[in-house]
Parts: sequence; structure tokens; C-alpha cells
Amino acid sequence: MAEEEVKETFNIDKEKNFPEWFSEICKVAELADLRYNVKGFVVYRPWAVIAMKLMYKFYEKALEKRGHKPVIFPAVIPESNFKKEAEHVEGFAPEVFWITEHGAGEKFEEKIALRPTSETAMYSMFSLWVRSYKDLPLKTYQSCQVWRYETKATKAFLRTREFYWIESHDVFATLKEAEDQVKEDMEITKEVLHDIFGIPFIFFQRPEWDKFAGAIHTYAADAFMPSGRVSQLPSTHLLGQNFSKPFNIKFVDKDEREKFAYQTCYGPCISRIFGALISVHGDNKGLKFPWKVSPLQVIIVPIIYKGKERQVLEKCDELKEKLEKAEIRVDIDKTDKTPGEKFYFWEMKGVPLRLEIGPEEVEKNTITAFRRDAENKEKIKESELIEWVKKTGEEYDKNLIEKADEGFKNIIVEANSYEELKNAIENKKMAKIPFCSVDMDGEPCAEKIKEEMKAEVRGIRMDKKETPKGNCVVCGKKANCVVYVAKQY
Amino acid sequence: MAEEEVKETFNIDKEKNFPEWFSEICKVAELADLRYNVKGFVVYRPWAVIAMKLMYKFYEKALEKRGHKPVIFPAVIPESNFKKEAEHVEGFAPEVFWITEHGAGEKFEEKIALRPTSETAMYSMFSLWVRSYKDLPLKTYQSCQVWRYETKATKAFLRTREFYWIESHDVFATLKEAEDQVKEDMEITKEVLHDIFGIPFIFFQRPEWDKFAGAIHTYAADAFMPSGRVSQLPSTHLLGQNFSKPFNIKFVDKDEREKFAYQTCYGPCISRIFGALISVHGDNKGLKFPWKVSPLQVIIVPIIYKGKERQVLEKCDELKEKLEKAEIRVDIDKTDKTPGEKFYFWEMKGVPLRLEIGPEEVEKNTITAFRRDAENKEKIKESELIEWVKKTGEEYDKNLIEKADEGFKNIIVEANSYEELKNAIENKKMAKIPFCSVDMDGEPCAEKIKEEMKAEVRGIRMDKKETPKGNCVVCGKKANCVVYVAKQY
Repeated sequence: MAEEEVKETFNIDKEKNFPEWFSEICKVAELADLRYNVKGFVVYRPWAVIAMKLMYKFYEKALEKRGHKPVIFPAVIPESNFKKEAEHVEGFAPEVFWITEHGAGEKFEEKIALRPTSETAMYSMFSLWVRSYKDLPLKTYQSCQVWRYETKATKAFLRTREFYWIESHDVFATLKEAEDQVKEDMEITKEVLHDIFGIPFIFFQRPEWDKFAGAIHTYAADAFMPSGRVSQLPSTHLLGQNFSKPFNIKFVDKDEREKFAYQTCYGPCISRIFGALISVHGDNKGLKFPWKVSPLQVIIVPIIYKGKERQVLEKCDELKEKLEKAEIRVDIDKTDKTPGEKFYFWEMKGVPLRLEIGPEEVEKNTITAFRRDAENKEKIKESELIEWVKKTGEEYDKNLIEKADEGFKNIIVEANSYEELKNAIENKKMAKIPFCSVDMDGEPCAEKIKEEMKAEVRGIRMDKKETPKGNCVVCGKKANCVVYVAKQY
Repeated sequence: MAEEEVKETFNIDKEKNFPEWFSEICKVAELADLRYNVKGFVVYRPWAVIAMKLMYKFYEKALEKRGHKPVIFPAVIPESNFKKEAEHVEGFAPEVFWITEHGAGEKFEEKIALRPTSETAMYSMFSLWVRSYKDLPLKTYQSCQVWRYETKATKAFLRTREFYWIESHDVFATLKEAEDQVKEDMEITKEVLHDIFGIPFIFFQRPEWDKFAGAIHTYAADAFMPSGRVSQLPSTHLLGQNFSKPFNIKFVDKDEREKFAYQTCYGPCISRIFGALISVHGDNKGLKFPWKVSPLQVIIVPIIYKGKERQVLEKCDELKEKLEKAEIRVDIDKTDKTPGEKFYFWEMKGVPLRLEIGPEEVEKNTITAFRRDAENKEKIKESELIEWVKKTGEEYDKNLIEKADEGFKNIIVEANSYEELKNAIENKKMAKIPFCSVDMDGEPCAEKIKEEMKAEVRGIRMDKKETPKGNCVVCGKKANCVVYVAKQY
């Protein structure tokens, strides 16, 4: 093989120019296509869909392990259901797509909402299913898409009018159990989002003015994008009896008295989490998938020399079969590109391991293996391949997660004055500030920050208790809490 | 344990009273709830959803094995796309749900269809993706739901306005490859529908007047329900260049000339197949799930005697853990029902195997095992449990499939006169008749059958070549083909 001229397929500084990096990688790696001719709607291509399907699988498993059962509810909600909970309808009505007719223009008697979220679809049925304390807890989830008329500019995965999520809806006999469920939801988030997908985040209790429409409390996980903006990933909501009353979800308790149930809901958005995942792990050369959710885990590149084609390709086929038997997602690049082009291509696509097989490897029963994270090559014995791949896969994720956690540490900046807060936001950081209040009386200060810095108060940290020192950096009144401020997607 | 009075939970003659059997089992086994307050829309409950998810998995695997890649397309289609292929729009327009407004009643400039099928969504993008012969074949699939304004009465799984399917859309350089794909689609149908789900069917080439809107040929698998009606399960369509021309799907071939591509599409409807699956396998006692797709494969029933509760329950837990490790879907019924009630309940739910554990079993390290298909009990050694369960699971499906095939044999009746045809349909059979033509000139005869018997000409059998003898039983002209006639869901 002659020394070749290599065309780099991707080279964008992710930290310096994140928006370009993101939109280019979506195109070049064939993740998403924004050219579909309905505004806000995006087509997702196999390389993204395979990963999202794996992500769904891990999430569903974590939910099922904790007793959630899958259900399938209609995608449509009659207007009358939708209007049953006053705050909820106020929050969601502006975003609803309405179905009003069918066929050649025949009108429906009642307008039908395309679900923006399923509380008002599911809870009308829950009121039929829940009769006695024996029917509780009722823990359900569904994997589906929802539609919201978003007015900001479309961004594949991160901001679209149709997105792909899981929504979990639970019903309990007591407030205590509902509160415990919220904690369990946070635990699931950690287990899947951080420990499997490698995305660092902080769980915040949202301020009163930023709750889910109809909730008592909203807790949401914010991840931090290289653009200096947070992306809200799963949120879990303590609904209390706010929905069980209008939807009449009652049960006869052990004491034979009829009571309204307590509810929670939890909504991890897989398409948005995918957007966060590639943003957190990618580098200037392209994508970097965690091992567990990578569409391919191993790519085999044959290094062909004249006269040795057959032996090399046979060896590649043999190794592929071996790896497939060991349930590794693997393929061989048999295109007519040069090896160098193939190397860059699969690095850009984010495949964790590359195996290079040439005549030397065939002869010596060795394999040259390349790691996308460490970017180093090593020779391994063919007889140890499966063991090495499995061990390296585990190490790979450990390494990726550590790196992501490391990066996350530098994001938070303490700001003890309005000026410091402004600087932090300008420098694309998340600012930690003493703040007057996350009840409604704190809203004017949050509004001021929003107007002047286009940033938002994300809430009170849930993973540790923080006591404020001094005064609110906005209004100067005594600080009652420590909050975090950042720009949002 | 005292001899107890057993309440049978389910007992309906499936053959004699299939409609009641079907609607009751959907309720009692908690498969579906028809009380959702949008007409034609059904809520699916965990016991059905878990099975449908497994069915999706098997189908997706069979498609992926043959090179189909998953994609996700929007659920919405602009009216202008939808109208590009004249026959297609004529066929589907009457069934479309239209989104016309958002928020507080703001109108969209262009009406948006909720997809009834995705040709007109996907092919506008395929025209951007396909440039050269190197981009072909393009083989894709998506697992999603579609919406069609169906006017006949709603029947859970079998006839609804929202259904859950896989749609596979492929693009080829030549007609030959497209024709081969149609054959592959039939092969996949056999592999999954018959060999895994145990549903017998016949593949027909549909008559000209009953093709998919826009297709050159339509091939569809008909299964036969105990009601004496066929249910159309997957169909595959040879689209030729009927869509590639209006959607401008062109490629530069090896000879450097630009050509229109050839297309096929294939649509297995998982929710409808689920309906067929329970109908084919169920009996008067309730459901009977094939092993591979049963929500639970094994149910453990503790037989509690006073003073021995702890030992029995501990043994149950231990066995459950063992079975879970072997990847068997298993649960223990710890409710306060009597053992007899539990037996009937899980038989009604269709769980293949039941393990009964009492003090005797604990003491002797044995297990009493019950098979839902053979309805017999046997004692097995605890040490051989896993092996026995795996082996029995395989036997179970083999047995179920054989039984279903056997039942299917009695469904077809040869009819050589109009009277015989009428009798066959009245007797809830599928009639095999000599027929004038499946081209458009045969339509009047088919219309007559439809009017007088409410039955339909299903087409020409694909799995064997049949030569007609004599004349068309309807018009008396020379028969050109052998067709099958049956009522349809």
C-alpha cells in the first residue's frame, strides 16, 4: 500500500464553534436531515436511530426493573379532556397542534389535540382503572412521540416540534409514596443518563414560576452544552392531587374511605438526550459514542495489498462472525475508499474501536486495534480478541464518563455580585449565586436576569444542601437560597 | 390446604361465539380498553403491550438481518406532498386526519396530514438521498403508528383508527431487484408470522381492483379468524416507478445515465397481528401465548400450608431468581387469591408454564409443572428446572404452530358453482373457485360476490401455481385463474 494523501472528513473546533460543530456533524455523520418540508419537523437517519433505540432500551429496562409497566395511549386528546386542569391547559394550549377535520374537509364536532404530553389522555382512563388501594401503586410508562408548536429556531434533537420521549405516569395512595417516586425518578436518571450515557447533570428543584403546568414541584436535570447553554433533560413532577381531583382518580382505602390519589410524572426525552450525548462526548474530529449505545462498537478495516486480497477479506469475515457471536455490534468497511479515508470516516462517526487487518496480521494471527478515545494503536493476539474487546469496551465507557465529569467541574462559577454573574454568563458558564427566593416573590429578580443576560434561574440544587451567604445579587435583599443561573436551549 | 370452591374466570366457546370471545378476553385479560373518549382510538394495557414489544423486536431483527436500516420520519405530511401521486391520494384522502391550526386557533397556511402511511413523507427525502447507483439499494424501515379515518365499527387490535406497524420502504436500481425484494418480504413474513408467532396464512396477489393505491402489484398475507373472516396481515407492494417519477427519485447509473429508481414497500401491522395471534391460539379458557412472545413465560404459584409459609415463599423466590438469570420471563403470584383462582387466572392470561411449589415440593426438591397447551401436570426435579423449561418452551411453540396449521387446513373449501361458493361463505369457510380474471374485467364478478355474500375475492395464491378447470362460477365465462373468496375484517 502506497503512502496516501488523506482527506480529513471533519475538523471543527467544538468548544470555540459549537453551533457549527453541531449542525455539521448532524449532516456529515448522517444523523438528521432538516430539509423535511414541514417547519420544525426533522428526519432522523439510521446512525442516530440505532443509537436512540439502544438508549430507549436501557431506559425502559431501568423503569421496568422498578415496577413500571408499558402502556400505549392514543396520540390524540379531545379538547374537553385537555381543558380539565386549568393550569395545565394554560401552560400547554399555546403549543398544541389541532386536528379539526378529516377526509374531504368534514369537521370534527370537537377539536382534537395532538398530544403535547399525556396527562389529560391517561388520567381519564386511570380514573376507570383505580378503584381500591389494591390497584395502587399504578406505575406506567409509554415510549412515544409528542408534538409542541415551538417558536424558537429548529435544532435537530435539541429543539423540534416533534420529539421522542418516554413518559412515566404513576398513581399512589399517599403523598409520601409520591414523594419517594420523585426520588426514584432522580435515581433512575443518574443510573441511565450518567452511568450509561455518560452525561453529567445537576438536578434542580425549579423555581415556582418555572414549574410544569399543573405540578406542585418540578425537579429537572440540566446538562451543560459546549455552547454555554444548559439543556433540560429528564424532569420529574410531583403532581399531588392537582390532577386526581379534576380527573376523579379516587380509591377506597384500607379504612374503607374514598380518597383522591397522589400522582407523579417523569419525562426523559430520548431525542434531546441524544443531542446532549453527542455534544458532551464529541470532539473536533467528530462523534464519540459511549460503547453501550454506539450503533457500531467495532469497525474492521481491511488493509489490502495486491495478491493478498482473498486472505485478508476472509480473515475480516471470520473475525466479524466471531464478534457477532459474542454480541458485539460490528461491521467491515469493504468500500473502495483508501484505508486512511476509512479511518477518518469511522472516527468521525464515533465508533469506539477499529481493527485493522492486513497481510501481516493474517500471517502472525495478530490484530492492530485503534481506540477512538485514547487515539492509540496496539497489537493484540487474535486468540484474545473477544476478551480484549469486552474489557476495552468497559474501560472505554469508564474513561468517557470520567472525562465528561472532569469537563463538567469547570462549568460552575461562584458569583457574589451582579457584575460577577454577568461575567460568568458572558463567559459561557453556569453561575452559582445567593438569591432572594424561588417562591413567586423571587420572579422579578429572575425576570431582570432574563432580560439583561438572556439567562435563567435554574433552581435549587437537589444533590446537596447549600446555605446562602449574604444578599441576593439582584435585589440586594437577604438571600434565602443558592440558585444556579445559565442560558438555556 | 382445604379443597376449595373454584370460580372459573373465563369460559366462552371461541369457535361458536368468536366476537364475544374476542371482546371479553380483551377486557378480562386487560389487553385493551375501548372506553377512551375519541371514537376509534383504543388504549393498550401492559399485558398486550409487553407482547407487542416482543413482536416488534422479532420483526425488526428479521428486517435488519436483511440489511434494512431504521429511520424516524415525521408523523405529519404537508398536503402538497400527499397529492403528488394521483392514485395514492385518491385512495388515501378519504381516510386522512387533517391538522389545520395550532395554539389559540391560528391556521396553518397549508393543511397537514397525520400520516395514513409514509410514502409521500419518505420519498420526498429519498429524492435528496439517492444520487448515484452507489446509494442503492436503499433499504429502510420505521416502527411507528399511523392514523386512518376508518368508518366500520372499532374492534381492538383488528380495526382501529390508530394502529401500530412497521413500514419498510426500499429503493433499487432495477425492476428485477424490486421484484426480488417483494419475494424477500414474503420470506420475512413466513419467518416471523408463521415460524415465530405461529399464525398460518396464505399470500395472495391481490386483484387489480384491490391494490394498494399507487402500486403495480400488491401481495398480501391473509390469516383466517375463527369468525370465518380473513384478516389482512402484512402486505408488500411493487411500486415500480410509480412514485419515483412524481417524487423525482433518480440516480446516475454505472453507464453514467440518469434513471428513475424502482421501489417497494412492506407494512406488517403489529397491533393487528397481535389481534390475529390471540384469535388463532386462544381457546375457551382464554389466551394461549406462544412461548417466544408471551409477556410471562412462567408463573410460580406458591401452595401455602399453615406453618410452612416461609419455606415455600423462599423457595419460590429462589426459583424465580434462577429462572430470571436464565433470561426466562417469570413472576410469582403472591396475591391473597386461592391457588385454584390463581390457576384459572394465569391460564386465562395465556402463560405457557405454571410451577406449583408447596411443602412437599420444598422437601423433595421437586416442582409440579403445568403446561397450558397440553393441560397436563408433571413432576420435575429442581436440579433440572432450567433445562426442562427451555426444552419445554421450544416444544410448546412447535406444538402451538402444528395445531394452528392443522386448524387452517380445514378452512379452505373447493367450490365449483355459485351455489357451492355461497354455501362455503355461509359456513364460514374460505372458498377456492375458478374465476374469470383478476384484471379489471373481473371486477363486475367480484362486485356481485360482494353484494350478495358480503365476501371478497382475495386474489391468486402465491405459494403454489394453480390452473383453473372449467368456467368462472360467477359469469360462466372461461376461467383464467383460481381465486379465493372470504369475508374480511
